[in-house]
Amino acid sequence: MRKTEVITIDRAPSHTPLDATLPALLLSLLVLILALVSPGLLMAQELLPSWNDGKSKQAIVDFVNKVTKAGGADYIAPEDRIAVFDNDGTLWTEQPIYFQFEFIADRIKVLAPEHPEWKEKEPYKSLLAGDLKGVAAAGEKGLVELGMSTHAGMTTDEFAVIVKDWFATARHPKTGKPYDEMTFLPMRELLDYLRANGFKTYIVSGGGVEFMRVITEKAYGIPPEQVIGSTIATQYALVDDVPVLNRLPKIDFIDDGPGKPAGINKFIGRRPVFAAGNSDGDYEMLRWVTSAKPPTFAMIVHHTDASREYAYDRQSAVGKLDKALDEAERRNWLLVDMKNDWKTIYAFDR
Amino acid sequence: MRKTEVITIDRAPSHTPLDATLPALLLSLLVLILALVSPGLLMAQELLPSWNDGKSKQAIVDFVNKVTKAGGADYIAPEDRIAVFDNDGTLWTEQPIYFQFEFIADRIKVLAPEHPEWKEKEPYKSLLAGDLKGVAAAGEKGLVELGMSTHAGMTTDEFAVIVKDWFATARHPKTGKPYDEMTFLPMRELLDYLRANGFKTYIVSGGGVEFMRVITEKAYGIPPEQVIGSTIATQYALVDDVPVLNRLPKIDFIDDGPGKPAGINKFIGRRPVFAAGNSDGDYEMLRWVTSAKPPTFAMIVHHTDASREYAYDRQSAVGKLDKALDEAERRNWLLVDMKNDWKTIYAFDR
Repeated sequence: MRKTEVITIDRAPSHTPLDATLPALLLSLLVLILALVSPGLLMAQELLPSWNDGKSKQAIVDFVNKVTKAGGADYIAPEDRIAVFDNDGTLWTEQPIYFQFEFIADRIKVLAPEHPEWKEKEPYKSLLAGDLKGVAAAGEKGLVELGMSTHAGMTTDEFAVIVKDWFATARHPKTGKPYDEMTFLPMRELLDYLRANGFKTYIVSGGGVEFMRVITEKAYGIPPEQVIGSTIATQYALVDDVPVLNRLPKIDFIDDGPGKPAGINKFIGRRPVFAAGNSDGDYEMLRWVTSAKPPTFAMIVHHTDASREYAYDRQSAVGKLDKALDEAERRNWLLVDMKNDWKTIYAFDR
Repeated sequence: MRKTEVITIDRAPSHTPLDATLPALLLSLLVLILALVSPGLLMAQELLPSWNDGKSKQAIVDFVNKVTKAGGADYIAPEDRIAVFDNDGTLWTEQPIYFQFEFIADRIKVLAPEHPEWKEKEPYKSLLAGDLKGVAAAGEKGLVELGMSTHAGMTTDEFAVIVKDWFATARHPKTGKPYDEMTFLPMRELLDYLRANGFKTYIVSGGGVEFMRVITEKAYGIPPEQVIGSTIATQYALVDDVPVLNRLPKIDFIDDGPGKPAGINKFIGRRPVFAAGNSDGDYEMLRWVTSAKPPTFAMIVHHTDASREYAYDRQSAVGKLDKALDEAERRNWLLVDMKNDWKTIYAFDR
C-alpha cells in the first residue's frame, strides 16, 4: 500500500516556528494515514489465515479482487456489495441439533414446574423425558407448539434477557463450550475480509431473529439490523403507561427455503452478490443470488470433518444437503471442504 | 499505529531530492485532511440552512451536540444512533392525498381496459369516475382491493419498473412537479445533518416498502435496506427455470400506528433514539422511542402553512394529527411549525 514516500523526512535547515510544529504535524498526519491504510496492510499479511491455500480460498479472493477493482469489467459499487450468510451449519455448528432447539428444551425444563399438565401432554412429555424421537413424532405442529411455549408470552425486552442468560450458561454437549463460541473461525475471517472490502454482511437464517440478535454482534460483528430470520408476531401495548412489545404465540414469517429470497427482498430490498449456505434450506437463496446479473458468488460449507466437527450431508435430519450438493458443480457454486480447506475450525482450537 | 520510529526529523543541511517533494507531500496530506474534515466545516457554515433560527432548530442541534460529545453524560455510541422518520407528511407532502393512492388511481385507469367488469364494480367504478367519496364508501376493504389489484400479480422486479415509470411521468396536482421532488428541503437537510453526525437514518412508513424503495435513495439518500414499510406477501417461483418473487394479493404487514414499533423491532432490532412524524399514525412510534432510556428525541412536523404547502391537523382525513398534538408538550416532543420554522419548503422553491 504505497508507503515508501512517507519515510525519513530531514535536512530542513533553520529555526522558523514551523520547524517546531512540523514534526508534530507530520506525526499526526502519518497516524491518520496509517489509520486509513492499516486494514489493507493487515489483510496483505494475514488474508484468511485459517483457510488452507487452495482452490476454495483462491476462488473467494479472486472474486473479491475482481469486484473491487475500480474500472474493472466486474466492478461492483460498494453499496451493491451485499453478502448473505446462513447461520446454522454455515457460520456455527448445527449438530447434534440446532442450538435454538437446545434453548427450547432447556426452557421447557425451566418452565415445567409452572405447567404440571406438560407431564402428560405431548410433545412436552417426550421432551422432558429426553425422548427426541417422541418429540419428532409430534411433527411440525408439535415443534411449533414447543416454540411458542418458549418464545412467546413475554415482552421483546424480557425475551432478550432470557436468551442472553441462556447463552451465558448453556454448553455444547460435545465441546463443553458456550454456544456462541461454536462459530467457525474461517467464516468469521471471511466476514471480516468481505467487510474490509466494502461488503455489508447479513445473516439470513431460519432461526428466530430475536434469538440470534442477542449474540450476532459479539459472535460475528453483525449488528441486529443485519440479521434476517424467522419472526413471530409482536403487539404494541402499554403496561403501566409504558410501551412494550408483546411476543404473541403466532408465527409471522418463516425465513427458510423459498422464504429466504422473500426475506432478503423484504428486509434488504436488493439482490445480494455473495451468498453462503450449507444445506438444502439455502438452495433457493443460492439460486436467487446467482441468477442475478453477474458477477455473483455462492458457496456451500460441506461438513466433511467428523473428527474436528461433524460429517454429514444427504442423510442428515439436521442440515440435510442433497439437492444443492447435486447442483453445486453445474451452477458454479463453490463447495467448501471443511476438512481440507479449513486449517482451524473454532477459535478455541487454536 | 505505532509509527513514530519512522520519522527522523533533523536539521542536517542540504539539497536532497526530498526537499523538493516535501511541499508536494504536505499539500497532498492537507488535501486528505480537508477531505476528512470538510463535512464538519461545511456544517459549521451552513447548518440546516432551510431552517429559521429559533427554538426548533436549536433543540435539534442541542440534542445532536449533546449525544455526540465524547465523554459527555448524554453520549450515545455511533452504533446506537438510530433515527426513524415517517415518510408521508414528514419527509414529503401527503396532500391532497397520499401519493401512493395517486399511483393506485393511475394504475387502475391504465389497467381498466383489461377489466371491463370494473365499470360496474365498486370501488373501481367510483374511482374511474373520479368520485373519491364513492371510493371512501367502500371502506378499508375496498381500498385493500384497489391496492391488491395494482400492487400484486407481478414479480418484484416488474413492480419496481412500474413504480419507476410512474414517478417519471406523474405530476403533483398543485405544484405540477414530479412526486419525488415534493420532499421537504429542511427534512432532507436534517437527514444529512444526522448522518454527518453518525446517525443511521431509516424511513418507517405506512406506505408500501417496495413503492418507496424505488425513490428513497435519490430523494433522501436512504438505501433500500433502511426503508421499513407495509409489505405484501411474496412467493418464490421459477419462470423458465429462472427464480422470481411473485407479489401475492395478500397483506403481510401493516406498518402504521402500533405497527410502527413492531416494524422497527422486526427490521432494526434496536430502539431508535430519534423519531420524526407528523400524524397520529406516528403516535405509538414516538411513544416507543421516547420511553427508552434517555437521551431520546422526538419531533412532529405540524402542517401550518396553507400558502406554501397545506395547513391541517385535527380534522384532516389524510394525516390526522390530534392525540399526538394534545400530548406533544407534556411528552416533550418538539412541535415543528412549518410556517415559521422553515425558510424553504421544497428545493424547487429556492
